[in-house]
Amino acid sequence: MKTARLSLRIDLPNGTRFGPGKAALLTALREDGSIKAAATRLGMSYPRALKLIEQMNSSFAAPLVETQHGGSDGGGTRVTDLGQEVLDLYTAICDASAAASTDQFHTLLKHIRD
Amino acid sequence: MKTARLSLRIDLPNGTRFGPGKAALLTALREDGSIKAAATRLGMSYPRALKLIEQMNSSFAAPLVETQHGGSDGGGTRVTDLGQEVLDLYTAICDASAAASTDQFHTLLKHIRD
Repeated sequence: MKTARLSLRIDLPNGTRFGPGKAALLTALREDGSIKAAATRLGMSYPRALKLIEQMNSSFAAPLVETQHGGSDGGGTRVTDLGQEVLDLYTAICDASAAASTDQFHTLLKHIRD
Repeated sequence: MKTARLSLRIDLPNGTRFGPGKAALLTALREDGSIKAAATRLGMSYPRALKLIEQMNSSFAAPLVETQHGGSDGGGTRVTDLGQEVLDLYTAICDASAAASTDQFHTLLKHIRD
């Protein structure tokens, strides 16, 4: 069976991009609450995950990810409300795009070599 | 003014991708009829353009780009009917996606740092 995947990227004014990689990282951070765990799960290096988080935090009006050091729970990493909203908007854009282009996408699939 | 751009990529079964770079190359090849001229116009190296053409030609059921050597017109490069159809489908997918996600995209723009 032929499989192809549509993915969507947003080029931001500061030159960075928001796409599937950052969306997956936000999702994993929300579930794991730890940069190390999220990076491991995604097969991403820790420095790479840190770099993507820095890019996201500097691209938006407020941070998408916050890291707390120490405290009674030993600190942790939290996706902020804005981070969650950006992730939800990105997911909604992907879903709306896929739904709107189903016919053309299937026609394209027919021309792809197996 | 904040500007952000939505771009769309299709991950093909053979591991290659079709996105804005290949679409721009097909468009330029159609207009210029020459790999060298198209690459120059796009600020792309000639070997890079050749590589993208090879990837496209091996990803679809038939070539998207044909090169003729010699002949009375000195040869040239031609975007095939399939190449034109794939380009048109990609453009249609991009247009349908952008139209379907306008509201979410504008909401996202509000959160982007100037």
